[in-house]
Amino acid sequence: MSTRIVITGGAGFLGTLLGRRLLESPVALCGAPAAEVGELILVDLLRPQEDLAGDPRVRAVVGELADSLGEVGEVDAVFHLAGVVSGAAEADFDLGMRTNLDGTRALLEYARGHRKAPVLVFSSSLAVFGNDPALPPLGAVDDDTLPRPQSSYGIQKLIGEQLVADYTRKGFVRGRSVRLMTVSVRPGKPNAAASSFLSGIIREPLAGERAVCPVPPDTPIALSSPRRTLDGLLRAAEVDDATWGSRTAMNLPALTTTPREMAEALDRVAGKGTSELIDWTDDPAVGAIVRSWPAEFRTPRAQALGLTAEKSFDDIVRDYLTDNPRARR
Amino acid sequence: MSTRIVITGGAGFLGTLLGRRLLESPVALCGAPAAEVGELILVDLLRPQEDLAGDPRVRAVVGELADSLGEVGEVDAVFHLAGVVSGAAEADFDLGMRTNLDGTRALLEYARGHRKAPVLVFSSSLAVFGNDPALPPLGAVDDDTLPRPQSSYGIQKLIGEQLVADYTRKGFVRGRSVRLMTVSVRPGKPNAAASSFLSGIIREPLAGERAVCPVPPDTPIALSSPRRTLDGLLRAAEVDDATWGSRTAMNLPALTTTPREMAEALDRVAGKGTSELIDWTDDPAVGAIVRSWPAEFRTPRAQALGLTAEKSFDDIVRDYLTDNPRARR
Repeated sequence: MSTRIVITGGAGFLGTLLGRRLLESPVALCGAPAAEVGELILVDLLRPQEDLAGDPRVRAVVGELADSLGEVGEVDAVFHLAGVVSGAAEADFDLGMRTNLDGTRALLEYARGHRKAPVLVFSSSLAVFGNDPALPPLGAVDDDTLPRPQSSYGIQKLIGEQLVADYTRKGFVRGRSVRLMTVSVRPGKPNAAASSFLSGIIREPLAGERAVCPVPPDTPIALSSPRRTLDGLLRAAEVDDATWGSRTAMNLPALTTTPREMAEALDRVAGKGTSELIDWTDDPAVGAIVRSWPAEFRTPRAQALGLTAEKSFDDIVRDYLTDNPRARR
Repeated sequence: MSTRIVITGGAGFLGTLLGRRLLESPVALCGAPAAEVGELILVDLLRPQEDLAGDPRVRAVVGELADSLGEVGEVDAVFHLAGVVSGAAEADFDLGMRTNLDGTRALLEYARGHRKAPVLVFSSSLAVFGNDPALPPLGAVDDDTLPRPQSSYGIQKLIGEQLVADYTRKGFVRGRSVRLMTVSVRPGKPNAAASSFLSGIIREPLAGERAVCPVPPDTPIALSSPRRTLDGLLRAAEVDDATWGSRTAMNLPALTTTPREMAEALDRVAGKGTSELIDWTDDPAVGAIVRSWPAEFRTPRAQALGLTAEKSFDDIVRDYLTDNPRARR
């Protein structure tokens, strides 16, 4: 028996990494024995990366999510990573509702139409948490902290979690929602996200380029590496229902650090003076956004599944260099 | 200046009571001076009650919510009470999604189309809380308790709250979500709701009829009277933004009692032996549902707005007799 898996957002940064990992070794789903991936379907607005597109087990479905699902057929598991990011959902409210809410509903209806309810891992986000302007600042986030989203993206993710929970309770899917942390270090180019600098201040100096840190060096930040983020998504698909537990979304572990500690880790791993390529500035607009994110997570639920954060940012820098051999110039 | 108000679900039990109260005296909205209601539009699948339908200020719009909003025009305030109840949303998933989720979205889009953002009071429900089968029983509910809905109705209400919060943050509406408690004593006939007996064991004996209590006499229950429920809806519309505070939904106060205490109150208010018309049975199916509801609420946020629960169930029985002069036979 081989397994059929679909990744929505399969041409994106995480979708690409997840696709590669799924093709590497057999995959266990919901406590069943591990099986080779026989077909991996990557749904995205863009074509998959070359290496994936060239794999005979990969099928690319290019187009809007809701329009593409008819071509996918029945699968054993769905990893739902597609969506518009927070800045875009904020700038264009209707686009965010259509893509993040209606897109997720279309996906759930597609899954509900299966003869056998598929495993469905939904990538939610720490953006469900936010500092409510009418309340004292949010402290450490626990497994049962009430989300009070302060962005359309966060609202849409929280709604997606609720839909996944109810479709699961009704037996339409076997859903698991995991809240992803800010991922650092992302390879590639800077993007428009307010969190972009959290990869840039490591990636660019390693490549011999200057980078800007727009917040004070001691701003607390919660991060997770790409590896640990994938671990969380895969573990969510893998465990049986009893081990997974509550249908409420699970926070993934995060390392709490600061840009100063990140720069120090960079110098320890890559050599003294590397961090001198960081320009320390103070952009109050970026700072306000960054400080609205929770900086500390206590995640006993994820830990009970064997998921942990990196112990130090040094490890994250080392992993980045291992996973991206051409990162350094 | 007179005020235009629409009530969705305006022919229902609470909609009718709310409509009468709105026509009685001037209404303040979001901290503005109180003004007479010049037009009250009642949207419902059914025609309004006779007294309301006969009031020259009342306009009835009969039909499906999403289809009816085009006829309503711009208003100063919306009370959104319409929806399918929990049993129906559970029995027919698609009906619940269409009415409770898509209906609320249609209403929010209608409100967003106003030249001036209207006040929008959304009646959510204690059904957003539930005993998660994977977790220890839910204890007392606080203002920041994480909802883990265990019914499609509860999920749809929680999603409605999130949409109201985001439409408010974006400035499309001035939304306030209040979570209503089980209302007792409801006048009229028993219905199919699992909570129906919580009115029946008072209403029927007062009318000289037998009633069944399907749960053990010491089962803890959280209740609110129709009066206090209306107080909550009106107070939510009335206060200014700063007084209202967080865009997260507000739990209304509840009286924690038991069927035994309710029966004792009935005897004290209506005369010894009245409660002998109650047949005490034990229906495990109803009991399981009733015990899944939270029985104790701590509501400092509502109290800061001057909202409190009744001190005893005796007061609730007395109010019921005052408000329903023909209740007793």
